[in-house]
Amino acid sequence: MRTKINHVTVVTMDEQFHVYENGYVVLEGNTILETGEGEGPADADGTVDGKNGILMPGMINTHCHIPMIPFRSLGDDCPDRLRRFLFPLELETMNRELIGQSTRYGVCELLLSGVTSVLDMYYFEDQVAAACEEMGIRAYVGQTIIDMETCDSKNTDQSLAMCEELIRKWKGHERIRPVVAPHATNTNPPEVLKAAYELAERYDVPYTLHVSEMDYELEMFREKYDQTPAEFLYGLGVLGERTIAAHCIHMTDRDVEIFRETGAKISHCIGSNTKSGKGVCPLRDLKAAGVVVGVGTDGPSSGNTLDLFHQFRMIPAFQRTWYHDRSIFTARDVVAMGTIEGARVLGAEKETGSIEPGKRADLTLIETESVNMFPVYDPYSAIVYSADASNVDSVWVDGRQLVKGHRLCFADLSAERKALDGMMKEFKERSVKYADIR
Amino acid sequence: MRTKINHVTVVTMDEQFHVYENGYVVLEGNTILETGEGEGPADADGTVDGKNGILMPGMINTHCHIPMIPFRSLGDDCPDRLRRFLFPLELETMNRELIGQSTRYGVCELLLSGVTSVLDMYYFEDQVAAACEEMGIRAYVGQTIIDMETCDSKNTDQSLAMCEELIRKWKGHERIRPVVAPHATNTNPPEVLKAAYELAERYDVPYTLHVSEMDYELEMFREKYDQTPAEFLYGLGVLGERTIAAHCIHMTDRDVEIFRETGAKISHCIGSNTKSGKGVCPLRDLKAAGVVVGVGTDGPSSGNTLDLFHQFRMIPAFQRTWYHDRSIFTARDVVAMGTIEGARVLGAEKETGSIEPGKRADLTLIETESVNMFPVYDPYSAIVYSADASNVDSVWVDGRQLVKGHRLCFADLSAERKALDGMMKEFKERSVKYADIR
Ligand SMILES: [Zn+2]
Ligand SMILES: [Zn+2]
Repeated sequence: MRTKINHVTVVTMDEQFHVYENGYVVLEGNTILETGEGEGPADADGTVDGKNGILMPGMINTHCHIPMIPFRSLGDDCPDRLRRFLFPLELETMNRELIGQSTRYGVCELLLSGVTSVLDMYYFEDQVAAACEEMGIRAYVGQTIIDMETCDSKNTDQSLAMCEELIRKWKGHERIRPVVAPHATNTNPPEVLKAAYELAERYDVPYTLHVSEMDYELEMFREKYDQTPAEFLYGLGVLGERTIAAHCIHMTDRDVEIFRETGAKISHCIGSNTKSGKGVCPLRDLKAAGVVVGVGTDGPSSGNTLDLFHQFRMIPAFQRTWYHDRSIFTARDVVAMGTIEGARVLGAEKETGSIEPGKRADLTLIETESVNMFPVYDPYSAIVYSADASNVDSVWVDGRQLVKGHRLCFADLSAERKALDGMMKEFKERSVKYADIR
Repeated sequence: MRTKINHVTVVTMDEQFHVYENGYVVLEGNTILETGEGEGPADADGTVDGKNGILMPGMINTHCHIPMIPFRSLGDDCPDRLRRFLFPLELETMNRELIGQSTRYGVCELLLSGVTSVLDMYYFEDQVAAACEEMGIRAYVGQTIIDMETCDSKNTDQSLAMCEELIRKWKGHERIRPVVAPHATNTNPPEVLKAAYELAERYDVPYTLHVSEMDYELEMFREKYDQTPAEFLYGLGVLGERTIAAHCIHMTDRDVEIFRETGAKISHCIGSNTKSGKGVCPLRDLKAAGVVVGVGTDGPSSGNTLDLFHQFRMIPAFQRTWYHDRSIFTARDVVAMGTIEGARVLGAEKETGSIEPGKRADLTLIETESVNMFPVYDPYSAIVYSADASNVDSVWVDGRQLVKGHRLCFADLSAERKALDGMMKEFKERSVKYADIR
């Protein structure tokens, strides 16, 4: 079955950044067969008229906590909310069932906004994997390992075991990839960070954690080891090409050099980092050093929405203001971070991140009919500066169309919401306890 | 004719920041009659079911160049684009007809995104006024006065005369208010800035200009007068309660004090300012001094989209990062800037900016059915961190419903676009000359 999509501007994000202004893409099964200028071959089994939209590689969200949907808009402006109420509420209220349904809802949001690959990190991650599998998205599912009692485990021995079980169960799956996810540099003892890394190496899977995000994290490492978190991780031997460090807000020149040397990757979450006033990751310096950086939204309690468009606008805004230089981080650079660089972060650049023959058919079609999408002189500019999630018309993952005409093809959004809302009664009651959080 | 809107969370933005969680609003003619908790009175002539949406005061965009729609996404990442191609292209291609049609299109975008009042500054402003009048928006129309040949005048004598004509024609109109708009501190000789201010005083209308935006502007005033632009304007006597200064990125403590003392207002355009890497207006200090600051998008060539939602997210992100303090600029503070503070900027706080009996019925209904709008614990958080322009369901201006179910009631968007596109042939051809602008 060959499907052709034509009458689109194809933004390939291949090595030469080819753009086909009146172009087409042909898919066969889960694979991209060809792309180029013009109407495309006549022998396709079906044709989708892209109506002058922009067809781009499916977007890649490299840091998320999908099941935190119930927390969205709760205590947004509260200082130190992680320790003051997120951790306790999670322990009290999150469970397997709620996590499964929240994931289903969050995946609806991801797909509707053009995200086709997501790296998640949460609890009961096997349930997250199952929900993502069902919903059709490509997901990298990271079981959280943290040195405290959580909703899914009593201690790190237990969560490490759960993580290994997750890997054994899902390793080799077409779309669902297990990940080892120790929570952060400062929320696990060094030996647990190391054991988790060995687990990731043994099964050859990614390793992801929060790095250099919190002021108190930096202080702790300074006081205890006279090191930065990156220096500490380097000494521990847990930085390598499989490592995906989320945030990396506070980076010294030496830290940048460590990332360059080890090949560790970064997920940049500008919306979350700046909503909380934490700071700005020095992307220009990281880029100059050749460090691979993708885009992450963080969870719906930190970044509120799971689409990349809000991040796209903020990335150049903060870098240019930080360095007082309007020429850095062009719209094309930003789109690259959300697609092919994101694929590199996940070690998936041979499969996803660009529209090239032989790659998986993960595609996002952005319509240009809405009021904000006229005129379009430059598709990169239109994606970064003009568009938002509501402009996503159609989405394909692994060759399967999951969104069409701004609607989910295989899920009923209002039913998913109703089911989630029905499970949130206790969550809402308990959150009242924290009602004075502002 | 009394219309009732109920089943909404009413975010009044009155002095006590009343929020009615299951509330209603009654309009009669162009005026708000009452608001409160509950179903509302039974004797309305018509009822609009708000379906658990958020009903807020219509948003106020205090700095825009609406007719620049043809420039959107053109040369976004070009250094010094104002002088390198915006000014020459404007001179070569903009004319009365194109400005009129671009305004119609831009107003569609403003209304669809929940903006009910806009302060514009451009050329052939009489045409802008006529288009805004027809489209039903509340508009403050500023005729640009600039010391160079433009598409509508040879010199400042001519544009000052056009401005006076504009004032005479529109003064006293219910929704369209004329404004004197000298372009910037550095693009007019001092005597023209002064003459323009006298004109504004004579007719008791607002006075708006770009202030402390450009590095070369600051250098020029430093070299020529050893002053900041604000100090210079102060010495010239053109800062007062009617002055609306756009941008004010670079502000010394003395500048803040000058604004406090004179009562001059500021339009903060964070998206435009940071996309171009110019810097961040010190809102915290201005707020502490009691200076009134509203939100502006700048034109579609600088800020790309005309809705306030993108600005809303960026305002706390930049202020909190700038001052490294996540507790400043709460979501409520931000919504205030986009509503009641915006009304104060325009000197219209007795008419607009809040939902209170006796005020004009300028209202924006944000639906909470879309995927990004669940859950909602706090309507301010949902507006600032979760929503985007696509969530605007309905809009009323001066009691008249102009948007319903995400669609314009009295304009055909695709027809407006077709008409505009038809007029842009020469514009597109000439812009090719500047195709090497990246
Ligand atoms: Zn995170
Ligand atoms: Zn401007």
